[in-house]
Amino acid sequence: MSDRKEFRDLASPEEAHEAIASLDLSPGTETVPLAEARGRVLAERIDAGMDVPGFDRASMDGYAVRARDTFGADEADPAVLELIGEVHAGEEPDVTVEPGTCAEISTGAVMPDGADAVVMVERTDEVDAGIAIRTSLAPGDHVMLAGADIAAGARALGPGTELTPREIGLLSALGVDEVPVARKPRVGIVSTGDELVRPGEQLHSERGQIYDVNSYTVAAGVAEAGGEPVLYPHAGDDYAEMERLLVQASEECDLVLSSGSTSASAVDVIYRVIEERGDLLLHGVAVKPGKPMLIGRLDDGTGSSADTDDGAEDGGAGRSQSAYVGLPGYPVSALTIFRTFVAPAIRAAAGLPEPATATITGRMAVRERYGEGRLRLMPVGLVESEAGETLVYPVDKGSGATTSLVEADGVVAVDPDTEYLAEGESVDVQLFSPEVRPPSVFGVGEDDPLLSRLLDRLDRPRYLPVGSREGLRRLRNGVPDVAVVAGPREREVETVELGGWTREWGLVVAADNPRNVAGLADLVDRDLRFVNRDTNSGLRTSLGNAVAALADERGTTRHDLVAAIDGFELTVKAVESPARKVDAGDADAGLGLRATADRLGLGFVPLGEQSVVVHANPDRAAKPGVRALDAVLDALDDLVVALPGFDRV
Amino acid sequence: MSDRKEFRDLASPEEAHEAIASLDLSPGTETVPLAEARGRVLAERIDAGMDVPGFDRASMDGYAVRARDTFGADEADPAVLELIGEVHAGEEPDVTVEPGTCAEISTGAVMPDGADAVVMVERTDEVDAGIAIRTSLAPGDHVMLAGADIAAGARALGPGTELTPREIGLLSALGVDEVPVARKPRVGIVSTGDELVRPGEQLHSERGQIYDVNSYTVAAGVAEAGGEPVLYPHAGDDYAEMERLLVQASEECDLVLSSGSTSASAVDVIYRVIEERGDLLLHGVAVKPGKPMLIGRLDDGTGSSADTDDGAEDGGAGRSQSAYVGLPGYPVSALTIFRTFVAPAIRAAAGLPEPATATITGRMAVRERYGEGRLRLMPVGLVESEAGETLVYPVDKGSGATTSLVEADGVVAVDPDTEYLAEGESVDVQLFSPEVRPPSVFGVGEDDPLLSRLLDRLDRPRYLPVGSREGLRRLRNGVPDVAVVAGPREREVETVELGGWTREWGLVVAADNPRNVAGLADLVDRDLRFVNRDTNSGLRTSLGNAVAALADERGTTRHDLVAAIDGFELTVKAVESPARKVDAGDADAGLGLRATADRLGLGFVPLGEQSVVVHANPDRAAKPGVRALDAVLDALDDLVVALPGFDRV
Repeated sequence: MSDRKEFRDLASPEEAHEAIASLDLSPGTETVPLAEARGRVLAERIDAGMDVPGFDRASMDGYAVRARDTFGADEADPAVLELIGEVHAGEEPDVTVEPGTCAEISTGAVMPDGADAVVMVERTDEVDAGIAIRTSLAPGDHVMLAGADIAAGARALGPGTELTPREIGLLSALGVDEVPVARKPRVGIVSTGDELVRPGEQLHSERGQIYDVNSYTVAAGVAEAGGEPVLYPHAGDDYAEMERLLVQASEECDLVLSSGSTSASAVDVIYRVIEERGDLLLHGVAVKPGKPMLIGRLDDGTGSSADTDDGAEDGGAGRSQSAYVGLPGYPVSALTIFRTFVAPAIRAAAGLPEPATATITGRMAVRERYGEGRLRLMPVGLVESEAGETLVYPVDKGSGATTSLVEADGVVAVDPDTEYLAEGESVDVQLFSPEVRPPSVFGVGEDDPLLSRLLDRLDRPRYLPVGSREGLRRLRNGVPDVAVVAGPREREVETVELGGWTREWGLVVAADNPRNVAGLADLVDRDLRFVNRDTNSGLRTSLGNAVAALADERGTTRHDLVAAIDGFELTVKAVESPARKVDAGDADAGLGLRATADRLGLGFVPLGEQSVVVHANPDRAAKPGVRALDAVLDALDDLVVALPGFDRV
Repeated sequence: MSDRKEFRDLASPEEAHEAIASLDLSPGTETVPLAEARGRVLAERIDAGMDVPGFDRASMDGYAVRARDTFGADEADPAVLELIGEVHAGEEPDVTVEPGTCAEISTGAVMPDGADAVVMVERTDEVDAGIAIRTSLAPGDHVMLAGADIAAGARALGPGTELTPREIGLLSALGVDEVPVARKPRVGIVSTGDELVRPGEQLHSERGQIYDVNSYTVAAGVAEAGGEPVLYPHAGDDYAEMERLLVQASEECDLVLSSGSTSASAVDVIYRVIEERGDLLLHGVAVKPGKPMLIGRLDDGTGSSADTDDGAEDGGAGRSQSAYVGLPGYPVSALTIFRTFVAPAIRAAAGLPEPATATITGRMAVRERYGEGRLRLMPVGLVESEAGETLVYPVDKGSGATTSLVEADGVVAVDPDTEYLAEGESVDVQLFSPEVRPPSVFGVGEDDPLLSRLLDRLDRPRYLPVGSREGLRRLRNGVPDVAVVAGPREREVETVELGGWTREWGLVVAADNPRNVAGLADLVDRDLRFVNRDTNSGLRTSLGNAVAALADERGTTRHDLVAAIDGFELTVKAVESPARKVDAGDADAGLGLRATADRLGLGFVPLGEQSVVVHANPDRAAKPGVRALDAVLDALDDLVVALPGFDRV
């Protein structure tokens, strides 16, 4: 504990890898039935315990013969042999093939004594005297000798082999029905932070509670890396409870991960427990995101903490300490640190190889500045050009955003001394999994309920509801394939219009309109609490125009009217958000759609109709995903009918 | 049934794909807990049911302020605000920030009423009058607004999304603890053939029994493709039993696969059952391997077989037929047909995408002739050149061999009208899985117990025990990296010798040598049954030389002596095989090693010592895997000590 200070300096990523590599995660071995062995890793070499096949085996339907009896035979001069019996697969032969005789035999049957070759039935005829053989055979023809596939005692599979259907096939052939495999490392997950609530439980937002994202996310990551996740009850920030859970997890697991809170008090509690109940090897790593990372060992409560470096032979049971890694609290940081530093250690302990094909190369779609002096693991999204080239763009919504988990496809490691990545520069992307592919179509723009249903009809679309204005800006910058723009188009950008629809917009009010809101003027003239949308929304643009028209009508300024509306500056993010505020009783009127009011059972005061147009980047109009979107746009009658206030253009 | 004949013509691979695509495998949907949702596929769109975060949230440790109170503040002229309280994460604020005041706040805490920005603690000082703010803030600074991550009602995840840790993270943030997913298609596996025995059960080789390879192999393939395999009891060739099992499987599963026997009678029984209890759509496909493939539908015994094309909505429960595919009997054929035609249909039904990265390009290492007029799915192995280029060679040991399952890495589809593939020609290899990589080192040659242990020390080696002579021949042809040659080297091939060892060889006899075999002369002079090795084995070469020496000594010919040895032509495949024949009482003496005799508790009559040398292809000597082998060869003292009769060179 005296050297606590030395961990205050950030360690390099290499030091963090080394610290984790110095921990003992080896889980020992176990025996599993062959039927459950897929994906497991052999703990030791398997030699064949028997010959395969176990007998000289006919590999054709035909006749078992003595090859010597057919020497010189051909179509013109067949050899005629006496038929003395038959042998089927799965039967012990009850005949012996003496010179001048043959026996009918089926594929897979045991070669009868005396016979050393099989002639295919197609090269024979039944004749009065027996079977006419129209070809000459060599000993061994169409016979698989005992042990020819694999012989007893031969090396069948080496230690460390991952068992796929193919290895399971070979083991089946050898009659093996259970196999020694590396045990999956048990990884305990302890979540911290008084503000966290497990999904499915009641959430009190007013108290600042949020759902615990990291526990299930990291558990899924552990399973993906070949470990066995063990979720422990949520620990809050209480020292005694945290200590009890960490020690229990250390007893039961090969590796303990703590994760969850971003709050300083929770992090501090964890820190104290590790220092007092284990060894802290490293505190803080020079990576972004993820600086606050702890690496250490944790005593398991059995008292003997001296022998931390042996126990490799028998695995977890023989250890008195478990490995420990503390992950950052923000989900993107936690998952990035987990993938970069922890998952490779779990895979190594499980005997699994690093995924082979999880890196691709692409070109930066935009310039990205950097220069923070630590390694940046930059989350990026992928989009394909019309020519199928992979373009890469940064996804940076701040570490606290959980949506960036699904908006990114992988990570680009940016060197501490890189000042910027140029547009067009080639970068290597570590994909989140080998199966990750760019979305079929990448759209940005307005949040719209018809669009949401339309996207359901496409295979792997990606859509970011950044609003009409921001969407058009991004389309102009060349990253997305399409932008969806609602209301008047404010910016001149060259696009290809794919199609669209119209939607009725106005004020969403409580059911049956109890405050008798009649229109926009009421927001100005009466004491009504209003909830607006942000300036990127096409609804906000249409509302702004309506306010301007009202100002003209009254001979005043737009500014004066806006100042008179209580809540004009109170903006919320998504198409339903104002309506939900109204529904919750937090406002009297909200900017929204008739369809939303209908869906939530609220009242609606119409103010107008606006178009929603899907614009394609001209460079991407022929891309298959854009064409698929175009096709779906041509057939949206049923969607229009299902949404009140929506219509075809 | 009347149109049975039309299936006698082989269908094209495209027709087979279409026939399978016409079957209804759709499994319906189910709800699973989030903790078990990894790898599953969303059955419907998930919209956010709540704002995330659910409140305006501080994203820094610091002070919650009214931004307006800090306008104009800087290092030289800080704004001083009265400190009125504190707010921690997970607490409901009990203060209101009035003009001129501030509240201490921690990351993740709820913004108190009145405050609209957070100043980082690093930009503040505690002073007598309160907190000095040394920077100017804008409203919203270091605050994540409610719904800013994702707003209630917004589209979170589309239908068909595969759930990885990232999607599980987003669902956690939304408090979702169970999700609607596509049910895994249930795939019944019925094995046929009287000769088959399940692994783990007693095998009677004398009756021609073999272990059932396909059941577990195909089951593992089904699980890999996202299906749920269901193994049915083995059916043999009995019509009534087969019919009962197939109808039961049809009732319980979305797809039924039959598989197992190569015998004509088993195939015929299956054929009759499908024709009588279902519809046969296709019989026989023009592919190699795998011609005998059946595709059809199977009634489930509930009687109503009319409505075969609906039931897509509710899945299996609403169907009165299941899909049926009959796989060929040979394991390599069965797995190839399964991968090519069936696995894609299972993945499609499960909603899973085709593996993205499972194809690589390589150059043919050898010329390969073809020209059989049907599509060949040629199993191939991969080997890397010293420069890291991928070379491709055919693995063709006959469809009956199970070892070719693990000796191949993927398949090259060779067009029906291709006559040959030239050496150096570029080919696309469909890997057996995206994780497949070429072996680190590819060796061929002698079967040797020390080598087997030595290979255990390497990461992903591949070794084919083809014998010394064949090994050297293959090394000369340039495909493998190394050849292991025992005994006198008969062929002049330019190689780099990496190292080796010596081994004592001779005659393995029964324990305590009951027939008092004294040496080679006894095999010639006495009535002893001998078991030899094949001519590729280095042991056979040394034995041949000893026979020649004895002939010289006696003034006779080698041929005469060989003719006098009972069993000289009786050859078996692997290093232990002759000893095992002796152990089983089938022979009096077998060609083998002292180490083998010791291991099996048998007697040994020494005849000599031979060298075993590891030769590298000069073009591959610098390849990392070859260098790793070289390093292991330099440190084999412990292996030499463990094996009686072995020594360092």
